[in-house]
Amino acid sequence: MKTKDKIIQASIELFNLLGERNVSTNHIAAHLNISPGNLYYHYRNKDDIIRSIYTLYEQNLDQMFQPQHSDSVGMDEMMYYVDRVFYSMWRFRFFYANLSDILARDKELHQRYLVAQKRLYSRVINSLNEMREQGYLDLDDDMIDDLAQTLKLVVTFWISYQQTQCEDEITQSTISEGVLKVICIFKGHVSDMGRNHLNQIEQNYRELMNSDDISPTLD
Amino acid sequence: MKTKDKIIQASIELFNLLGERNVSTNHIAAHLNISPGNLYYHYRNKDDIIRSIYTLYEQNLDQMFQPQHSDSVGMDEMMYYVDRVFYSMWRFRFFYANLSDILARDKELHQRYLVAQKRLYSRVINSLNEMREQGYLDLDDDMIDDLAQTLKLVVTFWISYQQTQCEDEITQSTISEGVLKVICIFKGHVSDMGRNHLNQIEQNYRELMNSDDISPTLD
Repeated sequence: MKTKDKIIQASIELFNLLGERNVSTNHIAAHLNISPGNLYYHYRNKDDIIRSIYTLYEQNLDQMFQPQHSDSVGMDEMMYYVDRVFYSMWRFRFFYANLSDILARDKELHQRYLVAQKRLYSRVINSLNEMREQGYLDLDDDMIDDLAQTLKLVVTFWISYQQTQCEDEITQSTISEGVLKVICIFKGHVSDMGRNHLNQIEQNYRELMNSDDISPTLD
Repeated sequence: MKTKDKIIQASIELFNLLGERNVSTNHIAAHLNISPGNLYYHYRNKDDIIRSIYTLYEQNLDQMFQPQHSDSVGMDEMMYYVDRVFYSMWRFRFFYANLSDILARDKELHQRYLVAQKRLYSRVINSLNEMREQGYLDLDDDMIDDLAQTLKLVVTFWISYQQTQCEDEITQSTISEGVLKVICIFKGHVSDMGRNHLNQIEQNYRELMNSDDISPTLD
């Protein structure tokens, strides 16, 4: 691995472990046994590193929103996507643990985040509309936007919420609980057909959670 | 007003305006035209000030959860309470703008927050059960806990979410939008009787929002 990439991997690891605020570029250099000068040759400062990590995260997220089983987004695809989004959040959890702070101090990153959020929002709206057309969801027009916003808020702040609500470390099972949370939010809006299908998805997911010590996936 | 109280009022004002991280005890002293030594006579450090503000906030919240119109908590009381909670959050918005950060660096404050959150959670569960008994809500037993958690998450991170989703300042209308958001979440779980009642509450609230440049209340 090149030094430039090693710096990114070590930064993700240390940020996730210790919290982004508690890790300096000097920590990162020391962790890699390289000089601070060598680190600065590759990245101007910590915010420069965070931007590069964000680029990785964005690529990761874009790759994941590929319909898996068909061209249309049904309930399985939606839940698969939710699971993948939570898994990405787990990999880059330092970012979500401190989101408003990180965005507030870097206007350029905030702009990129806003563009990505708009794209994400359109995708969620399209998926909800498709799920409604397929008869899974029972939603008035004016509730589609509202459900999309609630989902976005709950997913985005799931990690922060868990951090404020308990003193334990965030683990992969915290993340799996987030997927179940999203399933529960959908339950308020499903048709009878959707309910049976969603219960089945939930049951499969719980079995995977119990059988695995790694994150279950709906793949 | 005593110096001790003036320091608290000035701190709330500056924290809300500039963000808690960007305000030092020196800023606060300079703003009040007092010496840093005088400030330190009253408060050991910034975290000490934040704890005192948190005490104020907690008192504020406890006073607000008093049923207004009757002994039982119906839909009007619940919405009145939600409105009052958002209004408290507006007054102490710096706290919510940076919640996980502030709690992560002060274990004692985090403990107090956890105790208050448990109390709040019981109150929300009791209210939801009452609203269900009164026929407003249509909820399975296992959905009560879930709805309570979703409401708590959305309310707690509403300000942070708005900060990440737009570059504009947080205003009182951001807060009113949060109340409407909670109304929308309830819509997924109301009975027919509840729906009519909630639509009426929503309409009244929107009229108040449009007629007022101060925060509307459901009082």
